Amino acid sequence: MTQLYIGNKNYSSWSMRPWVLMKQAGIAFEEVMVRFDSFDADSEFKHTILQINPTGTVPVLKDGGIVVYDTLAICEYLAETYPEKQLWPADRARRAQARSACAEMHAGFTSLRNHCPVNIEADLREQGQLILRNQPGVRTDVDRLVKLWGGLLESHGGPMLFGEFSIADAYFAPVCTRIRTYGLPVPAPISAYIDRVLELPGVKAWIEEALAEKEFVLFDEPYRLRR
Amino acid sequence: MTQLYIGNKNYSSWSMRPWVLMKQAGIAFEEVMVRFDSFDADSEFKHTILQINPTGTVPVLKDGGIVVYDTLAICEYLAETYPEKQLWPADRARRAQARSACAEMHAGFTSLRNHCPVNIEADLREQGQLILRNQPGVRTDVDRLVKLWGGLLESHGGPMLFGEFSIADAYFAPVCTRIRTYGLPVPAPISAYIDRVLELPGVKAWIEEALAEKEFVLFDEPYRLRR
Ligand SMILES: N[C@@H](CCC(=O)N[C@@H](CS)C(=O)NCC(=O)O)C(=O)O
Ligand SMILES: N[C@@H](CCC(=O)N[C@@H](CS)C(=O)NCC(=O)O)C(=O)O
Repeated sequence: MTQLYIGNKNYSSWSMRPWVLMKQAGIAFEEVMVRFDSFDADSEFKHTILQINPTGTVPVLKDGGIVVYDTLAICEYLAETYPEKQLWPADRARRAQARSACAEMHAGFTSLRNHCPVNIEADLREQGQLILRNQPGVRTDVDRLVKLWGGLLESHGGPMLFGEFSIADAYFAPVCTRIRTYGLPVPAPISAYIDRVLELPGVKAWIEEALAEKEFVLFDEPYRLRR
Repeated sequence: MTQLYIGNKNYSSWSMRPWVLMKQAGIAFEEVMVRFDSFDADSEFKHTILQINPTGTVPVLKDGGIVVYDTLAICEYLAETYPEKQLWPADRARRAQARSACAEMHAGFTSLRNHCPVNIEADLREQGQLILRNQPGVRTDVDRLVKLWGGLLESHGGPMLFGEFSIADAYFAPVCTRIRTYGLPVPAPISAYIDRVLELPGVKAWIEEALAEKEFVLFDEPYRLRR
């Protein structure tokens, strides 16, 4: 059976994307959890993941002899393996837009990603206000998200970015949790979209399992001493 | 006709990828050059490119009403628009590997990209020695490239990474120019691969046009006062 190697659900933003995508689309897989102890060369995590992925990161998809080691490549692989699931929008122009948005997320939003690491169980809304005040790059990233999502929701009519659920929504799901964790203010239509994403069964399942974890992973906790 | 918006050929690594891909595959397009003056909000460059791409970057592909604004999305769009060109490897497992490698390039190799910006006409081999000595991240990136390319060339037998030319070679073409510009040492089979890439007609055409440019773009010249 297809295996998906992932990191801690409370922290691993990249792992969340293909996991949510497969759950939401009803693609069966076996989850292989590789817990974060540290990312040092001699960590358990690196020791385990380097055996399957030379870049030493999660997520990794293993499908028989095929190993796909990067989030966007995993999503493309799933889209072509399960065409009937329509993981990308069926319309050609929308598909091109969806791929642009995912590639933008894949390489971009670095300030938001650096300053607001995913931390599903934490309430960091005070910290979020400081980050917004101190980090112009985070403000730019949030502004861009608001424009991007706002434009797509308006032109395609919702409820998801391209109408029906697609890879694009899975790609932005961890960002939705960040906006909630750090209490970043967004206009009402964007907030409503985030609520809809967080209510998707695939996203809810991930979040529930994240909350059930009890680890405190130091290097993913720049803002807390303990839970 | 399909239009490809690009930046200066001597400097714009991202623009080079889809341009080389289309030339090499024989896909007709009209080039729209948006010269780099600066990346400031009030620059000519931003003024022009923001009219078509809200992220304010090149490359952008415009195909009738469809606008694709990110390199990897452009490559996927071309692959599905021209299936007869086999821009991705035809074999499913190779295609998954090729997508992994391109996604890795898309989001990764940041030390190499930051410290060794593309500069086709320059000879920065002395600078390259200093960078290698001072920047462990660049050494890590080059080691990873050597492993990645070496493994692919060995398992698929060359001459390109996946046998025949594919998106993956276009994706790494700017990296090949970096390795030459900065004189970064690589093993013989890797060096031979770089030579083969630099001899591809699509790559040669780009390089010739880069050499014919005479601009000196200050913010892309951390290591020179003038040409
Ligand atoms: N571009 C990669 C990024 C994956 C990534 O950075 N994953 C993190 C966990 S969310 C990781 O494994 N980090 C280990 C490390 O950086 O050493 C992808 O999309 O799969
Ligand atoms: N992820 C984008 C990156 C494009 C990019 O950064 N392009 C550079 C030129 S090589 C640019 O336009 N930079 C303008 C800026 O950073 O403001 C892509 O793959 O298309």
